Amino acid sequence: MTQKFVRTHHCNELREGDLDKTVTLCGWVHTRRDHGGLIFIDLWDKRGLTQVVLNPQIDQLAHQEAQSLRGNYVIAVTGTVRKRPEGMVNPKLETGAIEVYVADLAILNKSETPPFPGWEEAEVSEALRLKHRYLDLRSPELQRNLKTRYDITRVVRNVLHEADFTEVETPMLTKSTPEGARDYLVPSRLNPEKFYALPQSPQLFKQILMVSGLDRYFQITKCFRDEDLRQDRQPEFTQIDMEMSFIDEPQLFQLIESMMKAIYKEVKGIDIPTPFPILKYQDAIDRYGSDKPDLRFDLEIVDLSKEVEGTDFKVFAEALKNGGQVRALNAKKSSEALSRKVLDDLTEVAKTYGAKGMAWIKVNADGLQSPIAKFFKKEMLDAMMAKLGAEVGDTIVFAADTPRIVADSLAHLRLAIGKHLNLIDTSLIRFAWVTEFPLLEWDETEKRYVAMHHPFTSPMDEDLGKMESDPAGMRARAYDLVLNGSEIGGGSIRIHNQDVQKKMFGLLGIGKEEAQVKFGFLLEALQYGAPPHGGIAFGLDRIATILCGAASIRDVIAFPKTQKATCLMTQAPSAIDPKQLKELKLKFDLS
Amino acid sequence: MTQKFVRTHHCNELREGDLDKTVTLCGWVHTRRDHGGLIFIDLWDKRGLTQVVLNPQIDQLAHQEAQSLRGNYVIAVTGTVRKRPEGMVNPKLETGAIEVYVADLAILNKSETPPFPGWEEAEVSEALRLKHRYLDLRSPELQRNLKTRYDITRVVRNVLHEADFTEVETPMLTKSTPEGARDYLVPSRLNPEKFYALPQSPQLFKQILMVSGLDRYFQITKCFRDEDLRQDRQPEFTQIDMEMSFIDEPQLFQLIESMMKAIYKEVKGIDIPTPFPILKYQDAIDRYGSDKPDLRFDLEIVDLSKEVEGTDFKVFAEALKNGGQVRALNAKKSSEALSRKVLDDLTEVAKTYGAKGMAWIKVNADGLQSPIAKFFKKEMLDAMMAKLGAEVGDTIVFAADTPRIVADSLAHLRLAIGKHLNLIDTSLIRFAWVTEFPLLEWDETEKRYVAMHHPFTSPMDEDLGKMESDPAGMRARAYDLVLNGSEIGGGSIRIHNQDVQKKMFGLLGIGKEEAQVKFGFLLEALQYGAPPHGGIAFGLDRIATILCGAASIRDVIAFPKTQKATCLMTQAPSAIDPKQLKELKLKFDLS
Repeated sequence: MTQKFVRTHHCNELREGDLDKTVTLCGWVHTRRDHGGLIFIDLWDKRGLTQVVLNPQIDQLAHQEAQSLRGNYVIAVTGTVRKRPEGMVNPKLETGAIEVYVADLAILNKSETPPFPGWEEAEVSEALRLKHRYLDLRSPELQRNLKTRYDITRVVRNVLHEADFTEVETPMLTKSTPEGARDYLVPSRLNPEKFYALPQSPQLFKQILMVSGLDRYFQITKCFRDEDLRQDRQPEFTQIDMEMSFIDEPQLFQLIESMMKAIYKEVKGIDIPTPFPILKYQDAIDRYGSDKPDLRFDLEIVDLSKEVEGTDFKVFAEALKNGGQVRALNAKKSSEALSRKVLDDLTEVAKTYGAKGMAWIKVNADGLQSPIAKFFKKEMLDAMMAKLGAEVGDTIVFAADTPRIVADSLAHLRLAIGKHLNLIDTSLIRFAWVTEFPLLEWDETEKRYVAMHHPFTSPMDEDLGKMESDPAGMRARAYDLVLNGSEIGGGSIRIHNQDVQKKMFGLLGIGKEEAQVKFGFLLEALQYGAPPHGGIAFGLDRIATILCGAASIRDVIAFPKTQKATCLMTQAPSAIDPKQLKELKLKFDLS
Repeated sequence: MTQKFVRTHHCNELREGDLDKTVTLCGWVHTRRDHGGLIFIDLWDKRGLTQVVLNPQIDQLAHQEAQSLRGNYVIAVTGTVRKRPEGMVNPKLETGAIEVYVADLAILNKSETPPFPGWEEAEVSEALRLKHRYLDLRSPELQRNLKTRYDITRVVRNVLHEADFTEVETPMLTKSTPEGARDYLVPSRLNPEKFYALPQSPQLFKQILMVSGLDRYFQITKCFRDEDLRQDRQPEFTQIDMEMSFIDEPQLFQLIESMMKAIYKEVKGIDIPTPFPILKYQDAIDRYGSDKPDLRFDLEIVDLSKEVEGTDFKVFAEALKNGGQVRALNAKKSSEALSRKVLDDLTEVAKTYGAKGMAWIKVNADGLQSPIAKFFKKEMLDAMMAKLGAEVGDTIVFAADTPRIVADSLAHLRLAIGKHLNLIDTSLIRFAWVTEFPLLEWDETEKRYVAMHHPFTSPMDEDLGKMESDPAGMRARAYDLVLNGSEIGGGSIRIHNQDVQKKMFGLLGIGKEEAQVKFGFLLEALQYGAPPHGGIAFGLDRIATILCGAASIRDVIAFPKTQKATCLMTQAPSAIDPKQLKELKLKFDLS
């Protein structure tokens, strides 16, 4: 009980209304200037700056001590609030009309010169910033990001509380069920040769809670995936996880829309319109090539497979012959912007997504300019141009291949062209639901069906009859929420019928015994009165990144990891004491 | 989008004011009674019961279908709210004045007969309940507990938000620093031979956040300890974790007291008085033998070491000669309740905590009754009895040994006597702060000092000078919050000075190199302007258990683990695919 000061105000609080008050401020020395026998300190805390002044005529000792102050020193000052002299007012600073004349100064901690300033933008490598994350986190941008992230969770909790949800914690040490991504495993010392897995999602626990009659569950919780990390993936990520009993899609959509509305309103002060548009999966693929289309701009895909039927152009003819498609984008008024150089770059984009090349046509005043126009009869060209609504100044880019490659390459061409032509109004906020996903996908490596969403997703009622006859044709009661071209959440109505769940495991090639070992508790729970239920989960990191306008999810996570899943600050993961390994009855196998 | 019903009310919502409304309810068949050609169903959801009636004259088909209904079937009913006939009103049920006449019935799921009823108390082993946790969680008690736990977190979040805290998530995959309990380890596939540790607490990260200027941090988060589990310990537990810059103990205590006040007020409707009493560690030990005393009853320890000085009674004389103590409890008006049998039981309690036996004296109307009275001169007995305030009807129990054993055994004798004599008013709520803990404890096994709280706890300013001369005599700026004899939280003002932190590591026998490897990032952070800071962490499971009046923390955790750290429902931990182990470059070493 030995502290000698009690902070009365923070560093962005004092105003002209506080003149003559005796105050105590605590913070960091941001800058120090010696001028006219006085010492001026800009005192920093996360809320802002206050100028404090040391005058030898007020306190000789404090003034003397202040001469040792350097940047990042931590101090407490007690003094009187005064109006700044005429001409010294700083209108850029919220506290810019006042300064604090110091009567008492305490140096609470010194500081070495840091490797970078911390609270200013600096040209510093991300690696150095991550190593000294404590300095990096002093930057106004990261402070703001952490606050925004917190604000989002507050709004979510309030909305869900009002909607009668209960937050329930599910276990972190749980069971490995290698279906989906790779688990992080935790050896059990008390149960040798056995492992826990860190959860990839609380999926089965939240379903169990519905069987328990909890009715409405949510949780903001960490999930884990041991994947080879791509840009913007983290080994641990935070999920806003929800589940509800006795609901259907319209009820769920309405609730989520009100939640998103509240987030934008309270965090950004922006009203967003609801309801969100609903796009069927196949429509999204047909129109945008993607199940997470960016709807801030149009540039829709046009199918030309019919128009080019019978063409001599070998690339198109081959594609059609093999059950493929010919589709195109019409980039309006792009003839200048899409130079030969840019078209070459776009061709590379197309190739990245499996296309063998990229045909194009420019609609010039004096006719069509294109390496491929010569392969088409005029009637065919006219039909294509008509369907594309082509006018002088437009550029058409084509994809001809399997439906998958056509969709993938046109989706990315659409985004690349949208960016290049500045079609994307970044102030727009465009939500959409995507529904009616295929239930199953064929996995070419494993030679079996895998669940597109997960094995607990209910087929659509109208497709239940196809379970034996046409499993690939079944659609799922799954839905994604897409925001400006990012999938920010996804969920489904679940299977609540034990027989359907067993059949589903069968379709996925999970034998009876395996199903029992991995999912026995779920199957058992389903037989004791499981209610119809469904839910959704959102990636908090992704949502926070979008709302913060951040460049990377690492900028909305206090202590992110690198793409090698390491923490540059703590040096985790690290070597352990051999004794620890021995206790787990494990040894290395580097063969 | 295929659901055919939309729930309009839950099962504890309809009242007489709702008569004649058309409603849709969803829930579980709790009971079914056939009577006078009608079928009566008590329909259950977590909020309560509503009676629904199937009348063949209203809907022949529904009535017919209802004949197949059994307990735990999940149904949706649409019908009209009617007043129950005279004499059929059930005043015990909140919906007891009405019933719903069903026009439409949908059976949403069937149910097998469960192994136990779920929503009623039943004599079922805990193992069976944990295996079928989905049924167990239907019980009103567990539903209430989960709700109370959630309510506590809501109050905490609201109070801390008002006090300008920001919730920040710290990593789950972090660094193993084997100081304290045993870590749960997670092998890193991307970094072979290296491991993450699951956090025992976010201690270092929250200190780093203070260095970052975050000012006030909190988090409700999972922590992990791989210990041999005792009763009421779980491998993962939830911590309410906080840290503040520029504060001292009085400010922190006040904030926490307002938080506890809000929890009791909002969750239990009880006003608790603040401020909480503050007990110094040594006083707590002297008066109650424990640093987590139950203050709901008195029965304080009396030191008789002076009074018995020079005694011939060998047990006491030996204890004093070896630097020990002689102390006693006076159980007032206990002569009947503390029979010989009970005194024998109490002796066993004392022995459990290291005592060699337990001397006692009963103050009878006709004099002292005791196996040991004869060893003392009358003057000595008189002095003892005077100090004890002994009166006819009292029983004195003694402990004579090292200070440690005297404290431990008397602490437990005090609790045992308190319980046996019914001295504990369980309606009382007695908080206390315990402060001025020793900074260090001598570890006899490791032959070195260990930190009593943790290595980052600041010594008291007045004791800083003892760092070289008398480390064992240093007191810490640590504090525990005790509630009714349970430690529910603990914390400290931290070391913010790099030199002091280095010296502290030195005292703990952590060499310079080791300190650098394990805690280099902390030491480095401390040199760039670390503010004075401190914090506290609470065990949410423990607090919820007390507020729920639950018998075990397992009753306030949705999916608890057994004492062998297994989940009986999912069978975690479990064997894994050898491929998974191989990917981690590990193999078993069962030698």
